[in-house]
Amino acid sequence: MNKLAQWILDCCRDLAKFTEEPGRITRTFLSPPMKQAHAFLGSWMEEIGMRVSLDAAGNLRALYGREDAPRLIIGSHLDTVPNAGAFDGILGVALGIAMAELQPDLALEVIGFSEEEGVRFGVPFIGSKAVTGELDQALLARTDAHGISVTEAIRAFGLNLAELPAARFSPHAIGYFEFHIEQGPVLESLCLPLGVVEAIAGQSRWTVGFTGQANHAGTTPMNLRRDALVSAARWILNVESYAAAVPGLVATVGALTVSPNAGNVIPGEVRASLDVRHPDDAVRLHAVREILAKAPAEAIERLNQSAVRMDEALTTALADAVGPGAHRMTSGAGHDAMIFAPHLPSTMLFLRSPGGISHHPDEAVLLEDVEAALIAGARFIETLGAVHA
Amino acid sequence: MNKLAQWILDCCRDLAKFTEEPGRITRTFLSPPMKQAHAFLGSWMEEIGMRVSLDAAGNLRALYGREDAPRLIIGSHLDTVPNAGAFDGILGVALGIAMAELQPDLALEVIGFSEEEGVRFGVPFIGSKAVTGELDQALLARTDAHGISVTEAIRAFGLNLAELPAARFSPHAIGYFEFHIEQGPVLESLCLPLGVVEAIAGQSRWTVGFTGQANHAGTTPMNLRRDALVSAARWILNVESYAAAVPGLVATVGALTVSPNAGNVIPGEVRASLDVRHPDDAVRLHAVREILAKAPAEAIERLNQSAVRMDEALTTALADAVGPGAHRMTSGAGHDAMIFAPHLPSTMLFLRSPGGISHHPDEAVLLEDVEAALIAGARFIETLGAVHA
Repeated sequence: MNKLAQWILDCCRDLAKFTEEPGRITRTFLSPPMKQAHAFLGSWMEEIGMRVSLDAAGNLRALYGREDAPRLIIGSHLDTVPNAGAFDGILGVALGIAMAELQPDLALEVIGFSEEEGVRFGVPFIGSKAVTGELDQALLARTDAHGISVTEAIRAFGLNLAELPAARFSPHAIGYFEFHIEQGPVLESLCLPLGVVEAIAGQSRWTVGFTGQANHAGTTPMNLRRDALVSAARWILNVESYAAAVPGLVATVGALTVSPNAGNVIPGEVRASLDVRHPDDAVRLHAVREILAKAPAEAIERLNQSAVRMDEALTTALADAVGPGAHRMTSGAGHDAMIFAPHLPSTMLFLRSPGGISHHPDEAVLLEDVEAALIAGARFIETLGAVHA
Repeated sequence: MNKLAQWILDCCRDLAKFTEEPGRITRTFLSPPMKQAHAFLGSWMEEIGMRVSLDAAGNLRALYGREDAPRLIIGSHLDTVPNAGAFDGILGVALGIAMAELQPDLALEVIGFSEEEGVRFGVPFIGSKAVTGELDQALLARTDAHGISVTEAIRAFGLNLAELPAARFSPHAIGYFEFHIEQGPVLESLCLPLGVVEAIAGQSRWTVGFTGQANHAGTTPMNLRRDALVSAARWILNVESYAAAVPGLVATVGALTVSPNAGNVIPGEVRASLDVRHPDDAVRLHAVREILAKAPAEAIERLNQSAVRMDEALTTALADAVGPGAHRMTSGAGHDAMIFAPHLPSTMLFLRSPGGISHHPDEAVLLEDVEAALIAGARFIETLGAVHA
């Protein structure tokens, strides 16, 4: 497996060359370098005898095994954030192809999703939603920064929107499986190469506004001030201490806009983002209520996305394949598996992220962890193959 | 005095029409509308018999009385911040002319300074520094946003830089006096129309940087975070509580830059401004040390400006002119009087700012307060006239 693991890392690094921005890895939905990525992976897929196609949403699809046999879908995404690392998404596709290269007794469909990050059109999961039949008119009508709609982008890439219904997953699909880097520090902190994902956290996003009174920093005594940034600071510490006290909860104030934001003017307005996640929706929604109750401010809801549980049987089989003491965990980030879970039994395997770093050029993965993922993945597919023989 | 006060208010509102931005009051150093302001005020000055001139730095100057008689300089500035109110600076010039209109027994030189706000060249007090002989080569070489130097701007306005030495104040000057709106809420909170300024606060400005680790808001557990904004928030509350506990101290974090400033990323870097002011330099410098000691951060000093005391004899005479119980106070903002104080006995009279609002279109002044300022100013000049008769 060591040689195959090395090949996979090389493959991810080679794919990094297909970019919209020289010197940085940036490959968005249906961009020109995406064609190069398809050609590169397609030739590997064909070499090992997979039947390769491109669906109407630009997803790269390859089948190993008989068309009418029970198949496991293994997918992840080929698009990146701007100035990305080399492994987010791409590693999962390469590991999927490697699973076929190992010639298991189960048909596999490997999908390289065209879009997961939401960069070009401001909404994520366009690729996987095409496969689950959820690409609606509203989404197709969305436009990018140049005013090009999803529909137009699909045509410009040489694809035929009329074939979108054929992009839906086959009735022979028995489940969905995704390899992905953790993109967080948990596995590294536990000294573990792999983690079995049992749920993807639900997510709330809010914008919170604090209103004070902008005034001269030199002429307004402390007791006559209404400083919006002081109010916001008090609340930020409340958010931090509240989240730290609730197991599994994360809450983040990541963005802050201070107005007028001048050194010699008392802040009159502050707008803050709030991001709250937890695998249990009730815990998350209660946390949001408690956190917002501490803000003497107006709050606007931006997102309320429920947690998604992975399939218990598949996840148990995956944990067995990882071995005794397999670490079960929640994904704090969204993944394509979240889109498949309501439609097909789904599960995910996380690979340790050195330094917890992702969405950054320093994103990495260890060779031995890729090897461990290959072994666990192969065992998992062997188990499924035996069930569906 | 009521009619004269009304005339002064009308005059300030008329001057507001001379602006670089239609619909907003913006009149920077040597901008085209400054010529209109000079023409408007110049005709009033000439009407009441003053001898009007423009010095080489663009200061509008008018003499009432004999050239060789002991004279009091009464000045304030004619430039504004962007989107200003109608009274900051301008009111002081109009009140100065009104003092001459009252035909006192003391020669008066009224100066409308060309520059005080520091908007165009990023440094304030260009006008008053020309009069105190402090316009040095470095300052003259500074360039604005269009690459035009102070020297070039002076030429382009039709002025002769070679005449700069003649801009220095006359040896007959006995003192400097400035009327100005308070630009803060203190007089209003005390229900007083006027305040006598006994000192201008010293000022420290710093930039403080907080470093954490930018990371995914969903995948990084609370206990594995290094959130730069949480560190900054803790410090902001320390700044607030420290300043609130020290009489006369004001400390402000007015500007904050969060990086990468995305809702789903833990802040990795925060840069904050710090502005600390107090009439006693020792108290201010001690406060800065204490406040910075609480920041687990790097700090860069931007400004360390000493407090400036007004002349005790002049200030006492002004307080007597205001009447029993005259409120003596510190100015938290810088004024042209700060530039004159090291050269000439100087003092200032503050007029109440309704709502404490300044540097804003809502900036206002009450008719009865202008009337009170006229009466106090006239009495003050009468006293000085008697001394110098």
